This record gives sequence, structure tokens and C-alpha cells, in this order.
Amino acid sequence: MRHVHVIGIGTGDPGHVTAQAASAIAATDAFLVVDKGGDDGAGPDLEAVRRRILADHRPDGGYRWIAIAEVARDRTPGDYGGEVRSWHHQRADRYEAALRDEVGEDETAAILVWGDPSLYDSTLRILDDVAGRGTVAFTRTVIPGITSISALAAAHQIPLHRIGESMLTTTGRRLVAPDGWPAGIANAIVMLDADCSFRHLLDRPDPDGADGPDGGDGIHIWWGAYVGSPDQLLVAGPLADVADQIVRTRADAVARHGWIMDIYLLRRPTT
Amino acid sequence: MRHVHVIGIGTGDPGHVTAQAASAIAATDAFLVVDKGGDDGAGPDLEAVRRRILADHRPDGGYRWIAIAEVARDRTPGDYGGEVRSWHHQRADRYEAALRDEVGEDETAAILVWGDPSLYDSTLRILDDVAGRGTVAFTRTVIPGITSISALAAAHQIPLHRIGESMLTTTGRRLVAPDGWPAGIANAIVMLDADCSFRHLLDRPDPDGADGPDGGDGIHIWWGAYVGSPDQLLVAGPLADVADQIVRTRADAVARHGWIMDIYLLRRPTT
Repeated sequence: MRHVHVIGIGTGDPGHVTAQAASAIAATDAFLVVDKGGDDGAGPDLEAVRRRILADHRPDGGYRWIAIAEVARDRTPGDYGGEVRSWHHQRADRYEAALRDEVGEDETAAILVWGDPSLYDSTLRILDDVAGRGTVAFTRTVIPGITSISALAAAHQIPLHRIGESMLTTTGRRLVAPDGWPAGIANAIVMLDADCSFRHLLDRPDPDGADGPDGGDGIHIWWGAYVGSPDQLLVAGPLADVADQIVRTRADAVARHGWIMDIYLLRRPTT
Repeated sequence: MRHVHVIGIGTGDPGHVTAQAASAIAATDAFLVVDKGGDDGAGPDLEAVRRRILADHRPDGGYRWIAIAEVARDRTPGDYGGEVRSWHHQRADRYEAALRDEVGEDETAAILVWGDPSLYDSTLRILDDVAGRGTVAFTRTVIPGITSISALAAAHQIPLHRIGESMLTTTGRRLVAPDGWPAGIANAIVMLDADCSFRHLLDRPDPDGADGPDGGDGIHIWWGAYVGSPDQLLVAGPLADVADQIVRTRADAVARHGWIMDIYLLRRPTT
């Protein structure tokens, strides 16, 4: 039966590849690689990292590289969940066809996933969709990877929380929704935030009932982009002091690279 | 100046070691290793994994192994934060002495941390404490590792959340505190839970106002122990159906191994 490795490869530093990932890469016949094209500008840079990882771990070159065309996606849909589901389903069509038509029944395919396959990545859901169709049988393994959360903390040399505290992991979209960051949770990691949603925390009414905006209410931020890569950018400080700097740094980086992957940790002061 | 690598080594599978961690291990003169002794029974098993990793990555054997005696700790203190701080401070005394007396000024030391150094680990805080004393100067690097969260998700072959959802990372202690798991957050990862706190979710009043306990209110659990190791145990299912099985499986494992490291994901049904 066909086998599929879903391999977390970390956040862009080839040094993030684990021994387990390297073994799976060494045992792979065909790599299924979604070709992002020029869609978000990240395609060529991200493909270069994948190629570098394969060059390191498969110097023999004895594998196939199967490009899967990216599905066009509305980035500002009215129905977010529906749009993502439709996009997943079309991606599943393409993975199904690639597995059936381009991977032999006794072969092993692999999908190289940024960061870790369990966190804000669609690959496992898409494979569930493909498996559920019953048109192409396969077994699979999932290999954990270094998350952008761990990479951010390592770059800033900080723990993600003070002693015994909880941490929220969320998206920019949810952070600023009502109750998106409940008061009892001191720390919030924010991913997938093209809107610099942290800005909106600065001009909220003060929850203490004092007059005027809360100015971030003592929140501290640790921000990073391209974390783990040679292009890594880091900014940290009181949110009220560094928010503008992050917005500018981010805009400059997008202009220079044509794309960005960034993430940040927010922490409320102890009460 | 002395240099210290803080190296995340993953959750017990030597295959979790990254290329970056392997390079740092290769460049280390002295490994500082807290000797857990017989305190929690885990000492010998965890030390065996560290020894195995060093055997894999330092077959030359040209390094020193500096044992640091564990500080005795009250596991059920009245003042949890105070007890942890006192314990950290005493650990810092011992790291300070080891760095000053047993690591040369031009040498590199390393501390091998389970999982990732940013998550429920005290090493970075303790090194901050040592650095703040000004008695022994050192630079440091932090190398991210595979978290037990990623390892749990990989073992169950699941994403940690449904599309676009948030996730809470917390402790058993906090999970069952008031507002410990706010209603708007669908997913909760629970670590450091010796009490099987998930049981207490089963007999809470129904938040919908219906009569009787909520029986877990449709919550699903994915539980794992010794995740990534040959002793790995996994249980998943509706919380109301599998809670007893997890309690029994956990107790059997503690009796057999003398220690346990476990973690679980809880997910509320969509509303």
C-alpha cells in the first residue's frame, strides 16, 4: 500500500530538521510539493528552503519532485470557514490525483510542512478528506516539527509564560474579536496576522474603567519575522512603545521580500 | 567568555533531536545535568535518553558530564509560586557554582532540556537569575525543540484545532480553576496534571442550565504518556466514555515505570 509521511520541517532553518524527519526524507520516493507560484511572493523563497533540505538529506538525488498547483483562494472572503473548506476540498482533489497517478502502490510519498503539521496547517485535514473518498488507499505517519512558536521564543531567549501561567494560541482575526483574549490568560501567541491586530489593543477602553484608551495596559510584545532564517527580524518591548516600529519594520520587510511570515507573543502584566 | 547552549531535545525519542541541536551538542565541552536521583523515579529513564543522545552525537566521548544535585521540592506547597521561586533560586546557586568552578572561561557548556526550553521549563529563568548575579559571565544560545504538544498531535495524527480556532495551553491546576478554560476557546492542551483534572469537567453543572451534570458536554480527549518513546500510551475518545480508562491506564503506568510524563488535548464540540 502507498505510504505518506507528513513531515514538519521547522520554520526555514535547515537546522530545524530532526533526525526522525531526515530518516523519513531518506526513505521517500516522491515529494508532493504545492507550487505557490507567484501568489503571495513566498513561493520561490520557501521552495529554496525545501530544495536545500533535500540537497542536505538526499545528496543521491534519487527521488521525484511532484509539483501540485496551488488552488486560487479568496483571502478576504465573506464566509471564512466556507472559503477555507472549499479551498481544502480542491486541494484534496489534487493530492488525490497525484497520489493515484504519480505514486506507485508500493511507494512512499512525503509532504514537507512548515513548522509542525498540527498547528495552523491544512495537510492532515486534506489527507483525511482524500482517505475518506476511498479512491486511493494509503497509510501515513506524522513527524512533529519545530513550531514558529518555539522558534520565536528561542530567538528572543524567553519562556512563553511566567511560572505556572496559561497561554493562548490564536489568530489575528480572533485576538481582536470579543473575548478573543480572555482576561484570565496572561499570554497570547498570535499567528496568521496580516493586519497587525496588536494595534487594536492600544485604543480599547480601559477595562479598569479609567478614562481614555488603555494604551495597551502594560502589555509587552515579542515579535519576530522569518524566524530561524538568515532574514530573521526581532522587535520586543512595551506594546505602546514598539507597536509603530513593528508596523514599519513589517511593511518594509514585505516590500523587500514580497512576502512575510511573522508571529508574536503578547503578555499582560501580573495583577 | 563562557558560552551556554540551552538545547531542546524533544520528548524522549532520540529522533526528535534537530540538526541544530546536534551541532551544538558536538561543540559542547561540558554538559550540566540535573541529577533527579530517585526523587520521582524518572531519573534513571530520563538519564538513559540523554546518554543515548550523547552516544549518538558524541561518539568521540570527548566531553564532561557535570551532575548537579536536584534541589528538594515540596510538591504540594501552600504557596505554589513562592515554592517554585525558592526552588529556582537554589537551583541557580548550583548552576552558578558549576559554571564558575567546573567550566573554563573559554569553554562551552550545554543544558539538555526536555521538549522545548520555552514551555513549562525553568532553565531560562534560572540562567537569567545566574546572569543577574554578575558572578560568572556567559553568553548563551537557545535551541528550540519538539514540544510534547507537537509529539502528542503527531502520535494521534491530528491537528490541534479545527479551522481558524484558538487553543489554550495550561496546567491541570489552572484547567479546573474558575474561568480556567474560557467558553470561547474550543481547544485546551493540559500539561503537568498529576490529578487527572479532566475528571472534574464531567461532574460540573451544565452551563446550558439543563438539569444535572453535563457529562463533559460533548468534550473529546486525546491523551498520551511517554509520547515519542517506545513506552508510548495513547487513548482518545469522548471524555465521558474514556475518562475512567485513562485514569486506570495512567495508574498502571505509574506503578510499572515509577514515573510518568503525560499530556492531553481537550476539544469542545462546535456550537
